[in-house]
Amino acid sequence: MTSPADTLRQESPLVPRLRVVIIGAGFGGLAAAQELGNSEIDVTVIDRRNHNLFQPLLYQVATAALSPADISEPIRRTLGRYSNIDIMLAEANGIDVAGKNVLIDHGAPIPYDRLVIATGSEYNYFGHDEWRAVAPGLKTIHEARLIRHRLLLAFERAELSQEPEEKKALLTSIIIGGGPTGVEMAGAIAELGRFMITRDFRKLSPDHMRVILIEAGPRILAAFPQDLTDYATRSLAKMGVEVRTGVRVEQVGQDEVIAGGERLRTGCVIWGAGVKASPAAKWLGIDAKVGGRIPVDPDLRITGFPDIFAIGDTSLGMGDDGKPLPALAQVAKQQGQHLGRALKADLLEGKPIPPFHFHNRGNTAVIGRNSAIFDFGSWKLKGRLAWFLWALVHVYLLVNFEKRLLVTIQWLWRYATRQRGARLIDENASVTFPASTRRSET
Amino acid sequence: MTSPADTLRQESPLVPRLRVVIIGAGFGGLAAAQELGNSEIDVTVIDRRNHNLFQPLLYQVATAALSPADISEPIRRTLGRYSNIDIMLAEANGIDVAGKNVLIDHGAPIPYDRLVIATGSEYNYFGHDEWRAVAPGLKTIHEARLIRHRLLLAFERAELSQEPEEKKALLTSIIIGGGPTGVEMAGAIAELGRFMITRDFRKLSPDHMRVILIEAGPRILAAFPQDLTDYATRSLAKMGVEVRTGVRVEQVGQDEVIAGGERLRTGCVIWGAGVKASPAAKWLGIDAKVGGRIPVDPDLRITGFPDIFAIGDTSLGMGDDGKPLPALAQVAKQQGQHLGRALKADLLEGKPIPPFHFHNRGNTAVIGRNSAIFDFGSWKLKGRLAWFLWALVHVYLLVNFEKRLLVTIQWLWRYATRQRGARLIDENASVTFPASTRRSET
Repeated sequence: MTSPADTLRQESPLVPRLRVVIIGAGFGGLAAAQELGNSEIDVTVIDRRNHNLFQPLLYQVATAALSPADISEPIRRTLGRYSNIDIMLAEANGIDVAGKNVLIDHGAPIPYDRLVIATGSEYNYFGHDEWRAVAPGLKTIHEARLIRHRLLLAFERAELSQEPEEKKALLTSIIIGGGPTGVEMAGAIAELGRFMITRDFRKLSPDHMRVILIEAGPRILAAFPQDLTDYATRSLAKMGVEVRTGVRVEQVGQDEVIAGGERLRTGCVIWGAGVKASPAAKWLGIDAKVGGRIPVDPDLRITGFPDIFAIGDTSLGMGDDGKPLPALAQVAKQQGQHLGRALKADLLEGKPIPPFHFHNRGNTAVIGRNSAIFDFGSWKLKGRLAWFLWALVHVYLLVNFEKRLLVTIQWLWRYATRQRGARLIDENASVTFPASTRRSET
Repeated sequence: MTSPADTLRQESPLVPRLRVVIIGAGFGGLAAAQELGNSEIDVTVIDRRNHNLFQPLLYQVATAALSPADISEPIRRTLGRYSNIDIMLAEANGIDVAGKNVLIDHGAPIPYDRLVIATGSEYNYFGHDEWRAVAPGLKTIHEARLIRHRLLLAFERAELSQEPEEKKALLTSIIIGGGPTGVEMAGAIAELGRFMITRDFRKLSPDHMRVILIEAGPRILAAFPQDLTDYATRSLAKMGVEVRTGVRVEQVGQDEVIAGGERLRTGCVIWGAGVKASPAAKWLGIDAKVGGRIPVDPDLRITGFPDIFAIGDTSLGMGDDGKPLPALAQVAKQQGQHLGRALKADLLEGKPIPPFHFHNRGNTAVIGRNSAIFDFGSWKLKGRLAWFLWALVHVYLLVNFEKRLLVTIQWLWRYATRQRGARLIDENASVTFPASTRRSET
């Protein structure tokens, strides 16, 4: 079977090859690009970062367990083996639909025959964008480093403080949002803090440490069955995390959060309360009602835009049960693989793009040492076995053997010693201390 | 034998213990603190960073081979086991000699009975401090990340550039200073660049890449014997590094260096041209003639200050040959060990502090894959065997088994694949592209 493109190519070798442009090299974009690798199609991947990030383990960078390089890989390294793929470090900021061009922050527009939007999501501050600076989310390496820095610095400041109330405030971490990231952060901070205090700090007591997890909804981990939520809540409580559900955050400041009418002093605030899609919907003038996500047809095509597709967090696809697909890495990856394969068959062989079906590989969240939950739909798992499976799956999902080995060694080391390997306070961030940090005269 | 302190302590348990304050937790300060660990002396270690850095491998962070956490360790973790040692994250900025206090940037002065100054050195811009911003040195993790960022970004910009001259300029790295750090950086950049171009970039040619090492003196690696310099020069030339000796740098800008009357366009400038001591001499009103280094007596005491000692790069001690001791990690470490032990014997047993003798463990520099030099004084080593020994020694010198294992694995992986693990462009740094970065219309 010959496609229109093949026919053209046979007639004239000068006819340009078809070009697929992919915006975003996250789980979805990268999977699509890999499927199109070494084909007779020109592919351009645009990303504003030079690396792909394994976000499920980003909380471990924020809590000093892993290094950024352990969970990120240069896009050029992943896609370098495919001679038909071009990589551009640039930020897309619009689409010229009529001219079939992607507009970028520098340089001329990038022409496409088919466009794949895989621009992901960002944290939703629900109209309070001024909170972003004081309560970073956990989407990028920069944010993970910032949280690590603030967390460790708060402990250093607490050690030097002479005021008991201030000491306690500095040892209070507040995590806003009870989804998997919030739960993982709360558990990891409780473990890290307790270990550091007992082991490394002379003037701090574990009793002064507080980790508060605030969730506006009626329960944490709302995407999981109720009994797994209950298990996670008990597990967090055992680790000393205060879980507050049904509590709304009213004000967020550098060292203070007002939630449910209560004023809480804190040394470190972390945001994990809901995501919204990238601004891609705006580029197309689409009124994206559900968290900015672009509605797509079953074949992942954006309704009304025959040459443009959207995958991953930034798209709103429907599952076979008629419910919206969740914003998960596995959805993005499966969509990317499906679309990459389908576009190849479409462009080279003229085959129509089949509808996408999501295969649930299991939803998971880790709470702490020996404690995690797994929901496979038909069956569930919790506790030590779930934790072990979680570790196994996440090591396996890392990009290459070297990273798998490095992460495994660090996890085994940590399991044996409870030490964290990456407790670095970034020296370029200014070290400011509260006025009351006074040493008593000896 | 009972010391004055012992007698006092026996007479009255309320007599305060003697206190040693150490400023700086580098090789010297840390070694001194460890020797004083778990003794009947109160020790306070002041450092403006929370981590100790294994500087000999910092160039590998700057060239994307290792992660910052692989070569740095929280000071609290290293000294946490000693209950008599207190750690303060603070910046010392003066000494009140009469009152026996160290002045810090926040909080009350820190009283001492004996003071050890181990504040290290910084790069010397020879009166051109404005060059620091455009040509970072290699002393801190922040600077290493900055260099890594600029280096990788220059390659990304070159890939996008449409102007051949600009492409070449962006692929030109200039290293100023032909000491071990300059040589190591030049070699590592040449290897990294060549590998990335052949493997990951579509629109760059290895022929466009230049690495220029500029040295004002008559030869590179002046601290080594002439034949090792000759070997290193040949070795660098084989790797494509242009070594220019006897050339003075006249002007340093973000994308241009003027040296020996020639205007060189560049994508990344790195400074490694000589160090100067920390400003500690100024705190004491000492006129430190040789690079700001504080002259010390054979027992490491600062002349005229009976209770204050200086060790490492910031001190100027004399070797048994009457020549100044070099500013090397091994000197600092040996001085720290010597002084720590001696202070313990002095304060607890009233023993005088013996003179310090430096034992040369061998001076080394690595040029690239399979190429390094070793100078043991009586014998010398170069080539593959020296390189292997260099790797072995540096892994051994890392702080604990975990880091040794992690670095070994990354080196073996790199040796086998030539891949670098940490090719991250920091996303918080603004990505700016030259105006001419234009894509041709397709």
